[in-house]
Amino acid sequence: MVKSEAAAGGTDAGTRFLPTLHGPSRLPLVSESEARVMQMRAARMYGYQEPLRIEEVPVPEPAPDEILLKVAATGMCRSDYQLLDGYFKGPFPVDLPYIPGHEVTGRVAGLGGGVPSTVGYSEGDMVVVNPSWGDGTCRQCREGNEQLCSGNGRWVGFGPPGGFAEYMAVEYRHAIPVSEDAAKAPELLAPMTDAGMTPYRGMRKLRDAGKLGPGRTVAVTGIGGLGSYAVQYAKLLGGGATVVALARTDSKLDVAKENGADHGINVRDRSTAAIQDELERLTGRRTIDAILDCVGSEASISMGFDLLGPEGALAAVGLMSDRVEHRQFPFVGTELSYLGSFWGNHLDLVEVLSLAEAGLIKHNVTKVRLEDINENLEALGRGDIVGRQVIVFE
Amino acid sequence: MVKSEAAAGGTDAGTRFLPTLHGPSRLPLVSESEARVMQMRAARMYGYQEPLRIEEVPVPEPAPDEILLKVAATGMCRSDYQLLDGYFKGPFPVDLPYIPGHEVTGRVAGLGGGVPSTVGYSEGDMVVVNPSWGDGTCRQCREGNEQLCSGNGRWVGFGPPGGFAEYMAVEYRHAIPVSEDAAKAPELLAPMTDAGMTPYRGMRKLRDAGKLGPGRTVAVTGIGGLGSYAVQYAKLLGGGATVVALARTDSKLDVAKENGADHGINVRDRSTAAIQDELERLTGRRTIDAILDCVGSEASISMGFDLLGPEGALAAVGLMSDRVEHRQFPFVGTELSYLGSFWGNHLDLVEVLSLAEAGLIKHNVTKVRLEDINENLEALGRGDIVGRQVIVFE
Amino acid sequence: MVKSEAAAGGTDAGTRFLPTLHGPSRLPLVSESEARVMQMRAARMYGYQEPLRIEEVPVPEPAPDEILLKVAATGMCRSDYQLLDGYFKGPFPVDLPYIPGHEVTGRVAGLGGGVPSTVGYSEGDMVVVNPSWGDGTCRQCREGNEQLCSGNGRWVGFGPPGGFAEYMAVEYRHAIPVSEDAAKAPELLAPMTDAGMTPYRGMRKLRDAGKLGPGRTVAVTGIGGLGSYAVQYAKLLGGGATVVALARTDSKLDVAKENGADHGINVRDRSTAAIQDELERLTGRRTIDAILDCVGSEASISMGFDLLGPEGALAAVGLMSDRVEHRQFPFVGTELSYLGSFWGNHLDLVEVLSLAEAGLIKHNVTKVRLEDINENLEALGRGDIVGRQVIVFE
Amino acid sequence: MVKSEAAAGGTDAGTRFLPTLHGPSRLPLVSESEARVMQMRAARMYGYQEPLRIEEVPVPEPAPDEILLKVAATGMCRSDYQLLDGYFKGPFPVDLPYIPGHEVTGRVAGLGGGVPSTVGYSEGDMVVVNPSWGDGTCRQCREGNEQLCSGNGRWVGFGPPGGFAEYMAVEYRHAIPVSEDAAKAPELLAPMTDAGMTPYRGMRKLRDAGKLGPGRTVAVTGIGGLGSYAVQYAKLLGGGATVVALARTDSKLDVAKENGADHGINVRDRSTAAIQDELERLTGRRTIDAILDCVGSEASISMGFDLLGPEGALAAVGLMSDRVEHRQFPFVGTELSYLGSFWGNHLDLVEVLSLAEAGLIKHNVTKVRLEDINENLEALGRGDIVGRQVIVFE
Repeated sequence: MVKSEAAAGGTDAGTRFLPTLHGPSRLPLVSESEARVMQMRAARMYGYQEPLRIEEVPVPEPAPDEILLKVAATGMCRSDYQLLDGYFKGPFPVDLPYIPGHEVTGRVAGLGGGVPSTVGYSEGDMVVVNPSWGDGTCRQCREGNEQLCSGNGRWVGFGPPGGFAEYMAVEYRHAIPVSEDAAKAPELLAPMTDAGMTPYRGMRKLRDAGKLGPGRTVAVTGIGGLGSYAVQYAKLLGGGATVVALARTDSKLDVAKENGADHGINVRDRSTAAIQDELERLTGRRTIDAILDCVGSEASISMGFDLLGPEGALAAVGLMSDRVEHRQFPFVGTELSYLGSFWGNHLDLVEVLSLAEAGLIKHNVTKVRLEDINENLEALGRGDIVGRQVIVFE
Repeated sequence: MVKSEAAAGGTDAGTRFLPTLHGPSRLPLVSESEARVMQMRAARMYGYQEPLRIEEVPVPEPAPDEILLKVAATGMCRSDYQLLDGYFKGPFPVDLPYIPGHEVTGRVAGLGGGVPSTVGYSEGDMVVVNPSWGDGTCRQCREGNEQLCSGNGRWVGFGPPGGFAEYMAVEYRHAIPVSEDAAKAPELLAPMTDAGMTPYRGMRKLRDAGKLGPGRTVAVTGIGGLGSYAVQYAKLLGGGATVVALARTDSKLDVAKENGADHGINVRDRSTAAIQDELERLTGRRTIDAILDCVGSEASISMGFDLLGPEGALAAVGLMSDRVEHRQFPFVGTELSYLGSFWGNHLDLVEVLSLAEAGLIKHNVTKVRLEDINENLEALGRGDIVGRQVIVFE
Repeated sequence: MVKSEAAAGGTDAGTRFLPTLHGPSRLPLVSESEARVMQMRAARMYGYQEPLRIEEVPVPEPAPDEILLKVAATGMCRSDYQLLDGYFKGPFPVDLPYIPGHEVTGRVAGLGGGVPSTVGYSEGDMVVVNPSWGDGTCRQCREGNEQLCSGNGRWVGFGPPGGFAEYMAVEYRHAIPVSEDAAKAPELLAPMTDAGMTPYRGMRKLRDAGKLGPGRTVAVTGIGGLGSYAVQYAKLLGGGATVVALARTDSKLDVAKENGADHGINVRDRSTAAIQDELERLTGRRTIDAILDCVGSEASISMGFDLLGPEGALAAVGLMSDRVEHRQFPFVGTELSYLGSFWGNHLDLVEVLSLAEAGLIKHNVTKVRLEDINENLEALGRGDIVGRQVIVFE
Repeated sequence: MVKSEAAAGGTDAGTRFLPTLHGPSRLPLVSESEARVMQMRAARMYGYQEPLRIEEVPVPEPAPDEILLKVAATGMCRSDYQLLDGYFKGPFPVDLPYIPGHEVTGRVAGLGGGVPSTVGYSEGDMVVVNPSWGDGTCRQCREGNEQLCSGNGRWVGFGPPGGFAEYMAVEYRHAIPVSEDAAKAPELLAPMTDAGMTPYRGMRKLRDAGKLGPGRTVAVTGIGGLGSYAVQYAKLLGGGATVVALARTDSKLDVAKENGADHGINVRDRSTAAIQDELERLTGRRTIDAILDCVGSEASISMGFDLLGPEGALAAVGLMSDRVEHRQFPFVGTELSYLGSFWGNHLDLVEVLSLAEAGLIKHNVTKVRLEDINENLEALGRGDIVGRQVIVFE
């Protein structure tokens, strides 16, 4: 699924670092000679189930079709913990030592020699990194779904070096410029690239499948990093649907309600019938029309299918369990749908950023330091983090 | 398109009036003997381009599959004026003398002998009348789009007697019960059946065609009875899209903005380029992604296509002109879409009523008396009415 | 899910049998007085896991909105065996003694008093029975999907008496007239109502989800009664897609190829990798884009998901197992879809009959006698029947 | 709409011609030094409404992300005539002298220095050229619809030099390799890029809009270069729909029937009612469900809308007239759709080539010589060409 670093980047010609390109009036933030010797701090992985090491390493040289980014903020995701833990060993092998971090925003610090002058940004501009870099040639890429590339696709932080470092190289096609206004809070931009975009795509799938609208009920299962955005999309895309949050702690339900959920149900240790009773009390109906599952455990998926009414749909973005199960007769006999939804594509990220710039998204972000990365990864593994922690580089 | 009254109603057996059916505990509002002699006030049409005559006429007897309705409120629509004026002579012939009025809500006053006991309402309940009664057998009806019936469909107020009267008979399948809370303001319910539902369906078509969403611009052309609801649906279904109202008077743009439009542009005597300049100033872009045209004039449609960007769509619900025109090259070369949208189906009305009951819709309604119907029809013909006038019966 | 017989049929008034309605020129096939005393042969169920008893019983009297049908042919389905075996005890309780049989075609022998004169058939016409009778009021019914009725829906042969009898009463809305040409072989019409329609809907879902087309591979799993039709729909709706049959016996693969499959793979005792190798040899690709599963076993569903490529979809119509399972990571990570598809709606049946009348469908039907029904049901339970057995009444 | 040649190609660095790149075992068809001096024959435009001049000119040097193609065949299209005539002066300005020709297939003769080693072809391979080169950054490009690029898109033969020459440079992303079997008849491949692909996309839009299927009628208007392919797609994608060709000469209707149309109607000088009578005689219905218009004249579009039944759709690919017109009431009142469809995207071309390679497409192609280009362009302008003329280079 993942091609080697050597094959990446597009050309056989040696990569060159050509930071000054577009007009004499702009000064590069780093000159070529500086870059050759410049060092940066980075958190690097030396093996599975080992802590990251914070080291001084050379600033990367962008390939001709890449830009160099001075990282402003990088979000910390449970999947970073999973990467270190070995969960993705099979599908996403990495070359050690390796710099993880896939939720990245930063300022353009240099442009490779092949970056066209018509791109919408220049040195100094704040850009957000779309982390899925398809090879551009397979059917999925031709449809714009590079995150599903079936050729030689790469995923930042799971192959190409990521953003747990002061600098990072990015294929120019995957950088999305934002306004200077948005640039003031890079810690709110970085999480958009996964925690913000992933549930957006899942909710969009439910809307595009015709499951949302007035008089319908849509639920979000799991109110963590993704789910607290998901309830907002349920409101934004729901067209008047009633939004119910399903979670296992009351504090998370409180977050959901602050973010717009009409109701919350604590499902811990509750039978299907008890949840249905509560649903009926709150919404007047015992069933749900659409569910976005942000957990991905056997229990959450199974509960979801039990609560769906006829023609209901469950979109899954969570990845907690390896296997999930459901009952075949009601699934077929009431024509349910089950839809996998993975990360997001370029336009999903553009749309999420557009919502964020318009002030239509609430965030629950804590700024943290690169120095504390190992403690924070452990906390993520334990499920102790509320909202999103984002590493900021001044 | 419209079958004769004689063939309507379903059975060859003589219609019987059996108001008491479902359990001895409920008293009919009118007894059989009373109904036989009961009279009601009604406004009847005796010819095209003549005023309606307000008369005492017998209360209608519902067919076995019909209910008798004590009308609570009936909206007045520009198409009522057009009916009298002769506009629909061809597609919708009516038997004179005839009672128009297609936006009707009322209380159940009796049930025909064939109405099943499982319907969701009883005598005394307030119901809203879905005005399109398909024959239930053509492809459109089988899809639920009875308003497009290509068999023997009928449209209340354009064939079956309508709601400009104190009582009216309604096929039971087309009555939608509402809560007692909503029943307190029948004048807000009646207009939902056309002014409220028609732009909802049009906006839904734009959403289902994938034209709405964050970062997109959606416009509503014409801010009259329909358009003042349309801007609200643009917000509700737009998923974060920027909403622009296009109209020819500033007061209508003010209404649009009160109802949620982000921007308004007065297009009277303005060139396409001038409108594009204003669009760019307001939204940052010179083009629009989706337009709901509530006018249907040659000028409004033509302007709409000039403003659409690549892959843009225009849905039309307005019917002002006979013929419309557009330029073929940009239409084909930028893959525009043009979508006719007519009234709405049963589920559209259910959804609109659900929004209304949830308090998500703003109304601009004036209560009027049956006695003043002719003056008000003339005002509609002149375009002098702001918002919706609704006849209320105490 | 199923309302009692007493509540069915629509009215509280006693049902009347009024066979002559529409003009004096037509003679009823049975007169009212004859019908009152007329007897018919029927196979009736007296208990679960007991043989049916073939008896003389009164011809049923149609309710006002029903027609009386002189049954011409009734297909025998594995689900008839399952009904007797008790599989549907929960969702579909029946009043004993009970006449099963849900794949029915016959000639109109009488019309209830409420059947409108505008229906498209008269006494003597051959009609096919759509077996799903929704209550017409829930969302699913309003969309035309009466087979998914969430109100008081009924399913012929699983509630209302079915076609294992010489006469049967049918709600007029669910009878579809066919040409006299098609009427010559009623044994080919009857199976269209389930074996023919069910995989058609499933395949249509895959097409409507955008999974079929040139260069794609579509597979059908299980080549029994449904699967032998399914491969034909894969060709008809596939738009040039390569069609692969997956089954566990070579003789079934031969049937699939005779019915148009491009390739067949015997999957018995074969690993996923071995099937993928064979796929690659036959189609040039190791993955499949769309699968219609006509089995519904744990093994078939699991195999299906293992073979799907990115964005692949599996539609399930089979019901062999109670629970199915799949791996969450590739499901989410490659955005697979799983779609339940149940029986079909009125328009599905109209479309399938249109294909059959146009000679575009191959059948594999054996005519059998009512007298042999118990032996044939046992054979169905053992899985010994190839193609479809259809009881014909002369 | 079209950026200047100077800005094209992607980089500011001077283009280099590096034909040998991928392993020492392959010999370039032309060496670098040869290319520098190599000459080719080309037909060049020196002004509007002037004949092309056939001249010896230098073989072009591919930019880093381009390949050099030895042209094998180039189709001649009516739009080539229109280009010379000045029809596209506004949207598609060209730098004179200019080489037109947009339907191109050829063998890879060299690869630019930036072409990745992972592309699916090498020197000597036959590739087909997708003629729409989007800038890859706008919404349309991100969706894969580069033919609708709203940024700096380019269209081969209307901006970048085309295939009326022995060699041509092509962005590597737009070359699609075909089998050596298909390579034997390049004259059948070249027209796929416009005459073959354009109606495919149009028909696909009608299918995706749900307008095709058993029992439906689909018509193709205009049986020229595009229409003779269109009737085939109507069969391939129609799912059993009846296919009707509408044209103004019987010989074209004969072509349509040879290519699979079920019926043909000569519409010249025939009233709508007369065409409806003929439709009814042939199909049993007076209306059509879906029309692909390959003409684009006022008369053809207007006729199309008059023939559509409720919920019918007309997709337009033809561009004969500047303005088209239709009646607003039936358009809105029966919910018609009008869909512009332009050329096709990469996947459309891949799918059409897949059909061609599978032998599912009939061609009507005549091989012609570059020397006769001016006479043939004149004949195209007069409408005298039956089928497609394709220039072949030995």
